[in-house]
This record gives sequence, C-alpha cells and structure tokens, in this order.
Amino acid sequence: MNSFGRLFRINIFGESHGGYVGVCIDGLPPGILLKANDFEADLERRKPLQKGTTQRIESDVPIIISGLYNEYTTGAPLTIIFENNNRKSNDYDNIAKHFRPGHADFSAYIKYKGFNDNRGGGHFSGRLTLPIVAAGVIAKKIISPIIVEAKIVEIGGKKDFESVIEEASIKGDSVGGIIECKATNMIAGLGEPFFDSLESLLSHAMFSIPAVKGIEFGTGFKLASMFGSDANDCFTNEEGKTLTNHHGGILGGISSGNDILFRLAIKPTSSIAKQQNTFNWETKTVELLEIKGRHDTCIALRIPVIVEALTAIVLADCILVNNAFSK
Amino acid sequence: MNSFGRLFRINIFGESHGGYVGVCIDGLPPGILLKANDFEADLERRKPLQKGTTQRIESDVPIIISGLYNEYTTGAPLTIIFENNNRKSNDYDNIAKHFRPGHADFSAYIKYKGFNDNRGGGHFSGRLTLPIVAAGVIAKKIISPIIVEAKIVEIGGKKDFESVIEEASIKGDSVGGIIECKATNMIAGLGEPFFDSLESLLSHAMFSIPAVKGIEFGTGFKLASMFGSDANDCFTNEEGKTLTNHHGGILGGISSGNDILFRLAIKPTSSIAKQQNTFNWETKTVELLEIKGRHDTCIALRIPVIVEALTAIVLADCILVNNAFSK
Amino acid sequence: MNSFGRLFRINIFGESHGGYVGVCIDGLPPGILLKANDFEADLERRKPLQKGTTQRIESDVPIIISGLYNEYTTGAPLTIIFENNNRKSNDYDNIAKHFRPGHADFSAYIKYKGFNDNRGGGHFSGRLTLPIVAAGVIAKKIISPIIVEAKIVEIGGKKDFESVIEEASIKGDSVGGIIECKATNMIAGLGEPFFDSLESLLSHAMFSIPAVKGIEFGTGFKLASMFGSDANDCFTNEEGKTLTNHHGGILGGISSGNDILFRLAIKPTSSIAKQQNTFNWETKTVELLEIKGRHDTCIALRIPVIVEALTAIVLADCILVNNAFSK
Amino acid sequence: MNSFGRLFRINIFGESHGGYVGVCIDGLPPGILLKANDFEADLERRKPLQKGTTQRIESDVPIIISGLYNEYTTGAPLTIIFENNNRKSNDYDNIAKHFRPGHADFSAYIKYKGFNDNRGGGHFSGRLTLPIVAAGVIAKKIISPIIVEAKIVEIGGKKDFESVIEEASIKGDSVGGIIECKATNMIAGLGEPFFDSLESLLSHAMFSIPAVKGIEFGTGFKLASMFGSDANDCFTNEEGKTLTNHHGGILGGISSGNDILFRLAIKPTSSIAKQQNTFNWETKTVELLEIKGRHDTCIALRIPVIVEALTAIVLADCILVNNAFSK
Repeated sequence: MNSFGRLFRINIFGESHGGYVGVCIDGLPPGILLKANDFEADLERRKPLQKGTTQRIESDVPIIISGLYNEYTTGAPLTIIFENNNRKSNDYDNIAKHFRPGHADFSAYIKYKGFNDNRGGGHFSGRLTLPIVAAGVIAKKIISPIIVEAKIVEIGGKKDFESVIEEASIKGDSVGGIIECKATNMIAGLGEPFFDSLESLLSHAMFSIPAVKGIEFGTGFKLASMFGSDANDCFTNEEGKTLTNHHGGILGGISSGNDILFRLAIKPTSSIAKQQNTFNWETKTVELLEIKGRHDTCIALRIPVIVEALTAIVLADCILVNNAFSK
Repeated sequence: MNSFGRLFRINIFGESHGGYVGVCIDGLPPGILLKANDFEADLERRKPLQKGTTQRIESDVPIIISGLYNEYTTGAPLTIIFENNNRKSNDYDNIAKHFRPGHADFSAYIKYKGFNDNRGGGHFSGRLTLPIVAAGVIAKKIISPIIVEAKIVEIGGKKDFESVIEEASIKGDSVGGIIECKATNMIAGLGEPFFDSLESLLSHAMFSIPAVKGIEFGTGFKLASMFGSDANDCFTNEEGKTLTNHHGGILGGISSGNDILFRLAIKPTSSIAKQQNTFNWETKTVELLEIKGRHDTCIALRIPVIVEALTAIVLADCILVNNAFSK
Repeated sequence: MNSFGRLFRINIFGESHGGYVGVCIDGLPPGILLKANDFEADLERRKPLQKGTTQRIESDVPIIISGLYNEYTTGAPLTIIFENNNRKSNDYDNIAKHFRPGHADFSAYIKYKGFNDNRGGGHFSGRLTLPIVAAGVIAKKIISPIIVEAKIVEIGGKKDFESVIEEASIKGDSVGGIIECKATNMIAGLGEPFFDSLESLLSHAMFSIPAVKGIEFGTGFKLASMFGSDANDCFTNEEGKTLTNHHGGILGGISSGNDILFRLAIKPTSSIAKQQNTFNWETKTVELLEIKGRHDTCIALRIPVIVEALTAIVLADCILVNNAFSK
Repeated sequence: MNSFGRLFRINIFGESHGGYVGVCIDGLPPGILLKANDFEADLERRKPLQKGTTQRIESDVPIIISGLYNEYTTGAPLTIIFENNNRKSNDYDNIAKHFRPGHADFSAYIKYKGFNDNRGGGHFSGRLTLPIVAAGVIAKKIISPIIVEAKIVEIGGKKDFESVIEEASIKGDSVGGIIECKATNMIAGLGEPFFDSLESLLSHAMFSIPAVKGIEFGTGFKLASMFGSDANDCFTNEEGKTLTNHHGGILGGISSGNDILFRLAIKPTSSIAKQQNTFNWETKTVELLEIKGRHDTCIALRIPVIVEALTAIVLADCILVNNAFSK
C-alpha cells in the first residue's frame, strides 16, 4: 500500500516527529555511480530557505545504509534515512481533539482508529517528501539523457507573485499555486494502454504529494472547449515530432517522443496562523482554533523538486519495463 | 501491466476489431447476486445512440464465462466477454503509414515494433471501456450504499451544448467536454497516505479512459489562486462534515466522509472526417490525411458511465483493503 | 490473488463444469509467432488417453480471443479460452453435504461461504491446468534455447510402475508418484536473493498444481544427511559449470548456469471409487461415501507437461526481469 | 522483487558487512502493542550461542525508526534496523576471484555484473534473516491464537545428533538437517486456489531462507508411494477435523483447520574450513580453496525461529486477505 513502482520500486517510511524518515528502493540496476554530494543540489532546493516557507530547518544529510558498495549501486535494495533533529512536538497537543481543517488529522484518525502518530502530520507530513527527493536523484541518473524540470508558474493567480506571498504572510494566511513540469529529450513508447498509461502513472505519483489537487497534461482543461481540428497535433517528421503539443507528449497513454508537459494545482497550506472556526470533538461545538507550529506560507514553492523526483521515478520505472520487452 | 486494483482487480483484454473484448475480475467477494439484466442500464448508457456519437452499433450482450454459479458470485475469478460483431476493418488500411494525429497509432507502433493490431485502435480502442462498464456494475453492488453519479457539465465550453455538437458534426469536426463525478453516502477512511492516496487511485483509473487529459478534485485548479483561510473546509459536526467542500471529500489522501467530487477534461475525439495535414511515413512528406470509419463527434457524451464504473471499482478496492485491517 | 508472475503474468479462470476455462496472459513481448498447431503436442500430452487416467475426454481446442494479429503476438493481453463440452454435473450432487476426503470441497466451502461452484471441483479442478499448459507453450518460445523436460520417475514407489497402476485401478483405488523436471541450456543470473529466489518462484508455481505435496531441488532431502564437503559442487570452468549438481542449478536463489533440477511428490488422486468412511454434514455422523464421476487412477501421469509449462512460465518471467536491468 | 506479501508486506534490506540490516513492514494493522522486549526471545533463538554455530556474535538490538507511537503500531510502515558491529571484512578478499562452492558468489557476480557487495555474502547473507525474525515477532501477534512452532528433527541423518555435529566440527566440515514446522489452533479457509495456495505461499517464503533445498507438506514425498485409500484423511466432525493428517492441514491450497505441518531439507553450510578443489577465475585453473571467516558447522540449528517467523508472516497475510472478503 505504501510503495510505488513496478520494477523501480520505492517504499517510504517515517513520521514528521519520529526519529527518521527514509526510503527503501528496490529494482535499482547495479553499477550506478552514486556520491554523497550527488544529493546536495536537489535536497537544497526542497529546503525552506526562501521567503514564504517554514522556519523548521533540518540538516537533511542522507545516510545510505544498504545497497551501495564502493560508491556504486549493488543491485540490492538501497535504503536512505534522514534524521529528524528539529522537533517541537508540544506544538501539536490539541490536534486529536480539534482536528485541523484541510489536514489529514480527522480522516487519519478514523482510518487508524486513533493510533496514528499525529505530531506534525505524522506519516502524512510533507517531511516524507524528503526521501522521495533523494530517490529522485537516483532516478534522474537512470533516465539520462531525459531531463526533467519543474517550476512555479503562478502563485495566488499571479505570474509575478512576490507581493501575494507577502500579503498572505502578513495576514497569517497561506496561498496556492501552479507548477509546470516538462521532460525533454524524451523517447517514444513509454507507458501502457490499460491501466498503466503514462498519465495514469504520473498522476498517481503526483497525487501522493500533499497539497496537489489537480493535474492536466498538455493543453489540459482547455482541450475541453476545443474542436478536434485545433486540438490534434499533426506530425511533422519521421521521429513523430509535432508542431503543437496539445497532447503533452502522451498519446493513447504512451509517450510520443515529444516533450512531456503537465501542470499541477497546489492548494494553499492548510496550517495557517489565522484563527478558524471549526468543530471541536472534545467540547462538541464549533469553536475557534489557533494553529501553532512552523508552517509554509506557500508550500508550492518547495514542491517543484519533488515533482521532478516523482516524474523521474515514473520514467525510470517505465524505461525498465520497456527494457524487459525489447531484447 | 494491464491490470488495476490491489484486491478487487480487473484485467481487460481484446481489440476493437478482434473477436471479443472482455474482463477478468479477481478479488470478488463470494455471494453477490448478479442477474443478466443488472448490466442493461449501464451498458445502454455507454451505447452510441445519442446525437454526436458513432454509428457503429453493437449488441453488447455480456457473456459471463466463469465465476458465477446459480446467479451468485463464487469468489473465483469472474470473466465477462462481449462479441465484436460490427467490424469494418478495411477502413483502417492506411493507418500504419499515415499515423492519425491525436491517436495512439504512432506511439503504439513504436512500443510494439509494428506488431500491434491497428484496426480501429486495436487494444487502445474506446471499445475496451465496455468491459470496464460491466465490471463497474459489479463494483457498484460492493460499495452500496455509496452512490456514484457522473454527468456532462460542459461541451465545447458551453453549459448548454446542443448547438456546439451540431456545429462540429456539420464541419466533420469533433469537440471536447467536461465531466463531473460525485460519490455520495461516503464513508471516511478510504485511501492511503503514500502512494495510494484516493486521489492517486482515482486519477490512475481515470487516465486509463482514452481522451481524458485532466482531473481536479474539489475546487481543483481554482485552489491555486486562493488563500488558505478561504480554501480550508471547516468541520461542522462529529462525523467530520464540512460546510464547504473545496477538498472534494479527500484529506491527506484519505476520504473524509464528505462527498467525493472531481472533474475531468475530455479532449475532442481525435478521429475527424475533416482533412488534416500530417506526416506520411511512406511518402516521407507532410500531406493531407482523410480519416474514414465511424467516429463520435463528442466522445465525452459516452464517458460518464465509464467514469462511474472506474470510481466504483476504486472505491470497492479501497473498501476491501479497509476491511482487511479493521477486524 | 489468482494471478502469477511479475512481468509475464498469467490469470486463469473457469470452472470444471462451467462454460469455459481460460487464461489471460499479460506481459507478452510483441512479435512472437504463434500458430494454431503450436499448442497441439503439449495439449495432447495432458489428455487422459493413457491407461490410469479419467475417461472424461474433451476436444481441448484453444480459442485465442485477444492479443494475436496475423499470427503474431501484439504485446496486448493474450486470452485463450477452452470450451467445456463433456460435463456430467449430476455426479456431484451430494458433495455439499458429504465433503470428499482429500479434496478442496470442505475448505472451499468454508472460504467461500458455500457460494463456490462445487461441481467437479469447480475452480479447484485439474481442468484449470489446461490453460496453464497453453500459456506454457508460449512461455517455451520466450525461453528458447532453454529446454524444459519433465517426466515420471516413480509411481507407487516403483520405477517400473505399470503393474501398480493396474492394481490400483482394479481396486477402485488411486496411486501417487514422483515427477522430475530438468531445464537445460540454462543461463546464469535468474532469480532474486529475497524473496523471489528461483526456488521460491518455481515452488510457488508448482504448488498451484493440484496434488503436489512436496518439492526438492538438486539432491534435495538427501542433502539434510550429508556433509558440506560432499554436498558442495565445485566449479570446473569459467562458465561456472560444476562436476556434480547437488544444488540443482540454483545457488543463493540465483541460477548458476547448470541444469535446473527438481522433483515433485504427487499424492494419489483424492477421488476414488472405493468407499470411504467420512463425516456427513447432513446426517452429522461418519458414514460411507461412494464417489461417482470419472477420475484418474494416477493423476501424476498427466502432470509432467503442466510442470514444464509452469517452469517455462517462471523462467520467462525471470528472463524479462533480467532484461529490464541489463541494458 | 525484494518484498514479500500481498497486504502484510515485508521489504528487507542490508548486507552482511554493511552498516545495517533491516526490514520495512507495510500493511500492519494499527493498534498492536509492541514493546522492546517482545523481540528478545526470538532474536535470542537465532543467535549463534549453541555448539555448531558461528562465533560472530552481534548484539542484535532492534531499533524501530518508524511506524510505532506510544508503543502501539500506527498503521504506517514500521521499519526496524539492526546495526552490524562485528565485521571482519578482510576475510573475504579472494572471493571475487575464487568463488566459493555452494555459495551465491558466482551467480550473484553474473547477475549484478560484479557490483554486488561480496563481503560475507553481502545481501545474500544469513544475516538478512535477522530482520525476518523481527517481522515474525509482530506477525505472531496478528495470527494469535494460532501458534507456530518449528524444531530440528534430524541432523546428518540422525535424530540424536550431537555426535555428528561434533564430528563435522572436528573435520572442519559442516552438516545438513531437517526442520519440522507445525501451526496449531488453525482456522479453515486461508489460501487461494490459483496461484496463491497456502503451500505456494509457504514454500515461496521458505525458499528465501538460505540453505533450504526441499519442502514437503503433511506426509509429503511418502505420499508418492501410497494408495489414495490410505492417503485420504477422512473427516471426523463438523469442524472438518481429520483422524490422520497426511494433507498437512491444506486441501486444494486452502487451510482445512487441521494443523499445518511441513518439513524442510537444510543443506550443510557451504562455507567450510576444509580445503576444496574448485575453479579459480584469476588463474583459470581448478585449485585448492581455503575459506576463512567464521561459519556455522550446522546452520540448520539457527533456522527454526526463522521458519516460524516466515510461517507467521504468511499466515498474517492470509488472514488479512480473508478479512477483506468476509465483511
């Protein structure tokens, strides 16, 4: 239930305020060179150093405890763990009684019958995206020369968005955004018709990221109001290149060799300093809730590198599957 | 690769112009009453009888060849097949040379090295959604009293859309649309944090439907321009009901007990009668392509019942998974 | 639950006295030439034409209803069905009350709460091995030039076993046997350390065959009484060939390139004409049961071709997995 | 590839001479009480304290780094790691050139193209059974009141076996044995007809244990020489109890409610001090190999607790699967 991938397979574990978060990666080809500083750039991008992100700062040093020998992957499961140092659990005392709106607190309480670790979101925390980014670093090596790049294209409805973050921050509020991801140097033939279309696999992965509430490929929702003669991407050469890219690089669930292109809707961070009127399960009435703890004004800012990681993970898995059938 | 589900598991097979299409369902609880006419209503809704849909008409009678005994499911795999009667394969002769824009023809050719059955889209055909609808009929029984309803909410950008379909039809063109799906009488606790969030599973399933290019849950892409204080759904009672439903019934990947709500972007049918300028792999030049065969002006019209089926299939699977851990 | 394989994946369905038995094969490489008469030899070997086997004779003509186009596999799921013509269901009337010793009747009744189709063993019937043999025919093409051969080596404790079968037949009794399977022209490197060792995968497959109650690789149970200096197979050349083959071609769960060698214990057919004293759930007393129907005196005789099929299926799956990681 | 189970799912990782070995358990019900000393008894049984076992002694303290909160399982993945303290890697210098007979060294070298960590067997080491035993401790809680007990029944062909171990030890040799495992207080209905019969799942698990080369259920290989009238276990009461237990508690792949009973053939430890004549890939000739390092004279002695763990893991998985379909 808590794993993803068919051949390149990741299992993540850990809780926001537990001892460690980590990932166990199965299905890793042997012989991939992996140095300690390979992780630095991507892990850095996920860190909350920018304006609009939380003040909880962790060192985030990856500790590889299996599957690597003399700096090369061995082919055995590779496990990476990260220590959680900077924990302030007393901020979360009233969660079990006054479930935070927009959070997993309530639904997790029901699912796990109250046994879930609710400190800082527990296993539902954005901190679990840290091992995903680490796994993505390795996946990016597998898919080379395909390059994956994700970036913020809009925050709070604005393309120039510094002021809207400032505004939200001052009000103790949060704000959503849109991320765009592109994979270039693509190859054709990745994905399956039913039920593992490339869109299915990518969306499956993306909706694991907390705060993602929508995904569209190519021209996406705008295609719904177009005519076929405008929406079809006509081929221009033998490699299957198309002039326009309304299809986002995927036809019939299979990559066409054109750039993969998709956009994600990121909701505003659910945890806000601003008071909210919501049901209190202890007092049995709707009353004001004030959320403490350190939170991101705009969580979208930290998500592009996670999107890249998961995209690379999906593509790595698809490439391995294709290898299986192409000998 | 061509199956879906963890416990309630469907495997679909067949080609548009082969002998049969079908589904083998594994993980079906024993003792579900299933009568021949249980399938009628949903199969009828998928048929192309409405204006704006193809003129290929099939009888679509489900033949259950395993897993049913004295009208009850036995617990063994249940297989349903449908005969393909109304085939006109000669319409598809030039596909392998002049791949149709917007279709899987090219990407499938690369993936399967030219061995795929390209008549009418082969295994990529919308005809494969027929066994999905049949499996959905059974899934709906499992999830009862949860009710799933999907409907068209927009075609060609219009909420009143008869004229836009008429226009496309006259021009030999096609047009896209938006479908909304709602699940009511929901229970809380379905779905997993990583990586089988309910959004992950639903989107995985939906992107198996040919022509789906986007999905958004609850307020979806609009959340990207909202502030957290507006986007959070405050709880109003002990059952976790919320006044607003921006979250679309899913928090942290887990159902909250509120209505599941999502929308799908459906692209216009790729096959259009109108001529298109596209590369011809035989002549090695871009030239006019005229697509024959019978096609839907607006494929979106036939998709709601498929969306319902896949939603019910996902929920059935999640309910079985939850049963496993709740004894 | 009712499928097997990671990439080359089979799903079997059907009941002994239902309309059809069949298999849906996923993960089939495209471009495998497959002619109708490719199935003949192996299907013939499974038929009950020899002395000591049941008199229920079926035509067993494979009907391929998907995944094949112009005699080549397409890469889409390939489904094969077989009609059940020769059914005599009234022989099985008292099964639900007087469960047959040695059969699945009782345990299946409990598992499926009485909804299982109990005619002729239903989904538990040896008839389900028919689609397995058909899938094996295709798997054998994938693993070529590896050759798999299984044969009877002992019946009723005798290497010359005609008379013991005769004896059992006259008494209305049945008798067990031992089958040996060898795979030659092997390649090294198939299988995984944990938990998909080649022994794990082969034994998993073999214990799906009704009546198999034991498996041993190489020198097997005799190794338990040997010293290491006798049991170790010393290498003799660069390809890893060994002089002796106590290890049965598998070291650390991975094929060594030496012949795969294993033996199976087949219990006597559970259905015997001879009367048995066993509990009757209707009368609540132990009383004599007389089993009607047509049964094999020695089911082991029909099993070698099934063993070959499953061995080929496991090896095909392992080869595809290895392909994935060796590019 | 390196995981096992459908709902209760274990992923093991680590190498004999790496930093840690561990297991990530997914599919764990929430609310299971788990105390640090719950692991002691079983971990102790696996330790090499008895005569005939290696002198490498580790403290083997389980460190739970996720999935546990206030001593209860949370429902999120539970990860346990064990530090490797007592490493003497220089003992393994010549392995890559002079592969040890009976070991995975050669087949692993081929599979992983020389990148595998070959120190002490690397990921193939018996040390990987340590996290399996830890996972078994938790599985035993899930299957309660079912009790699983495994024990040595024979070493070197003797039921009274101290002297044969002594003999092997003096000669620098090793010796094999037979382990018997029984599960009592069983329930009927666990397992599936195809392809997850209880025998399939148990054998799949058992052949993950290094050195297991055979398995037989109930009367096993002896059934091959019996008549059906002797081999059938007649039912004696309404609960399906049988007087004899030739079937080992499994009929048609499904538990019958009688005791599960199986035996395993354990080969002699492959690493022996005694010199062996085997091919040297560096010198390209067969020459004497002398294996250093610390090894077990009779590895079978340490295996019963591992067999119990894997049996409990399989049964826990089957119980969860049955729960799914029995609501």
